[in-house]
Amino acid sequence: MSVTAASGFEAGGLGCGIKPGGHPDLAIVTTSDRRAVPAAGVFTQNRATAAPVQISREHLAGGHATAVVLSSGNANAATGEQGRADARRMAALTGAGLGCDPSDVLVCSTGLIGYFMPMDALESGIPRLTADLNGADAAADAILTTDTVRKEAVAIVAGTPAVMGGMAKGAAMLAPSMATMLAVITTDAALDSGPLHAALTRAVDDSFNQLCVDACTSTNDTVLVLANGRSGVAIGDDRSLGAFTDALTEVCSSLAEQMARDAEGATKLARITVRGARSVEDARRAARSVAASQLVQCSLNGEDPYWGRVLSELGISGAAFEQERVEIAYNGVVACRSGIAASDDPSGLEATMKSPEIHIECDLHSGEEMATMLFTDLSHAYIDENRGTS
Amino acid sequence: MSVTAASGFEAGGLGCGIKPGGHPDLAIVTTSDRRAVPAAGVFTQNRATAAPVQISREHLAGGHATAVVLSSGNANAATGEQGRADARRMAALTGAGLGCDPSDVLVCSTGLIGYFMPMDALESGIPRLTADLNGADAAADAILTTDTVRKEAVAIVAGTPAVMGGMAKGAAMLAPSMATMLAVITTDAALDSGPLHAALTRAVDDSFNQLCVDACTSTNDTVLVLANGRSGVAIGDDRSLGAFTDALTEVCSSLAEQMARDAEGATKLARITVRGARSVEDARRAARSVAASQLVQCSLNGEDPYWGRVLSELGISGAAFEQERVEIAYNGVVACRSGIAASDDPSGLEATMKSPEIHIECDLHSGEEMATMLFTDLSHAYIDENRGTS
Repeated sequence: MSVTAASGFEAGGLGCGIKPGGHPDLAIVTTSDRRAVPAAGVFTQNRATAAPVQISREHLAGGHATAVVLSSGNANAATGEQGRADARRMAALTGAGLGCDPSDVLVCSTGLIGYFMPMDALESGIPRLTADLNGADAAADAILTTDTVRKEAVAIVAGTPAVMGGMAKGAAMLAPSMATMLAVITTDAALDSGPLHAALTRAVDDSFNQLCVDACTSTNDTVLVLANGRSGVAIGDDRSLGAFTDALTEVCSSLAEQMARDAEGATKLARITVRGARSVEDARRAARSVAASQLVQCSLNGEDPYWGRVLSELGISGAAFEQERVEIAYNGVVACRSGIAASDDPSGLEATMKSPEIHIECDLHSGEEMATMLFTDLSHAYIDENRGTS
Repeated sequence: MSVTAASGFEAGGLGCGIKPGGHPDLAIVTTSDRRAVPAAGVFTQNRATAAPVQISREHLAGGHATAVVLSSGNANAATGEQGRADARRMAALTGAGLGCDPSDVLVCSTGLIGYFMPMDALESGIPRLTADLNGADAAADAILTTDTVRKEAVAIVAGTPAVMGGMAKGAAMLAPSMATMLAVITTDAALDSGPLHAALTRAVDDSFNQLCVDACTSTNDTVLVLANGRSGVAIGDDRSLGAFTDALTEVCSSLAEQMARDAEGATKLARITVRGARSVEDARRAARSVAASQLVQCSLNGEDPYWGRVLSELGISGAAFEQERVEIAYNGVVACRSGIAASDDPSGLEATMKSPEIHIECDLHSGEEMATMLFTDLSHAYIDENRGTS
């Protein structure tokens, strides 16, 4: 039930014909009373934003929303004026069906870039769906593309009865052929869009943005949160906002990890932690450089603890450090100390590389800051997944 | 003969036992009279520099050099104090054999990161090689790692009898498992190390640095040029320096293209040109973003003209542009105009993707600047090449 775990929300999904074969491809999440509630969004930093991103930003300007309509199979990206008209039409159809103002409807689409939306499918599908909101699971299914499993998460705001729940699609950088990642989270906590946006920005930064470089920069990436206040739990002071942000981060982190685990073609779930950096920015830069490295990814695919590549990626990341202080470990087995090979436990090192989860820890010994990112190996299956659009 | 095409230079190569099976792995290039001549180098920007890079920088401080000793199979990177002592010993052995000051010997190594040099092999190999400099081809063979062919180039300084010639190893980002790229160029033109360095920096920027992001940032990347003045052609005024720089760029560009063509596992040689950018920096950033994209590389491997991914990479590059002005063409066939699909010639587009060379041209229509980069597709063979170190 995830995205409707908080009281006062409804959702549903169905197949309307965007994807072939009747696969689920249309979802709606709405407040049960169709009232507009405080809402916030974090969108892709890509200059080439998809039409639904442009329209959702516009509709979110006032900080409120009633519903979100989401489609999968077609990204409605690189579609110009026609794409914006189509995204507006999706909001209008949803508003008409639910009985709310179209400008209170946010729009998300995911799928292939460069094709106009098959609006016939949406003209008939949206009214059918608004007439029968068949539940959160159906909604969570309908937003998937190359994903193999539904992604849902729920958390409680500590010390309160307030609940939040979310759903997402996305398979990290490992399968963005159907650009991109989307997430919708609802909560019955009561707070304004200002603090809601601050909490969301923080939570996304500590979760989806640590998944990998590419995951947050495609044309359609969107994370939305709606807060209807139904629990009566008011988020006002710093302490309650802290608890709220923690719960939101928990939901986002769970969804991000589910994405990494579902990365198409991946055989390893990898985590890179960089410690001892001079600044958080340096730590993130270094972690990102390792996570995004095709060579490090290939080594993981081959179960080869080639720490030299990790050191090289740290070196080009722009982070400040002395190479001869660096320590690198795989699943706790030290492979490099003081910047040179450390043969503490060669057979242990070899053995641990067979694990499906690899945690690479790097200590730069240059400061106190740290960062972590999730990534995966690079496999033949990744290439096969992304060679073509069909 | 390449690296000895200019008069007054000698070279040779042999297998000394760094690589198994007696494969060529040691090369020397020297002035014929063992005199130190003006020299310049451009090195990796990586903070984790290999020992030979550190020693070569030190030895180049005075702007002169007599010889270069190069080894392949072991990068002497991430080897700390021992690595520096070993690189110094390689210079000392070379100086002793050639009869020149060890501080006039530059050192380059390429191969696996994190292993100490097998100095026994070098202790016997360097004297053997200095006693029998068997030619430029043997030298060019001895610096290869995953390369399948020797890389050599020669050019004339326009309007003069001055010659330059070079050799290189490297297979672009497509096979840097044996980090990295090396190039040595010699010329009989006469100029000081100041203008020589300026010309080299410019030439590298317009050649190797346009090969791809990774090619110039590993632990060992080095490009060296030695100018012995033997032709009597003095490079003094702006005009002659321009002609000299052009010739140097020609040699570097030829070597860079040979690297791209030899990229292991690649099935396509790709060129991305970005025009109409507001600044050269923006054009380069945009071209680099496309060239480095795993998704674009996968599309090329699948012969799929998925321009949406190109647009998305332009969008995250940081370059300034309006997406609805962008034009994208593959080998001259327009696939996207005004930021949306252009179906001028769908069958021509499909047909041209089968070509072994793909030129992607993007016009941002936002300014007057342009940049070009070479890259390749991403294949199963790339992963196989880079899964393990053995």
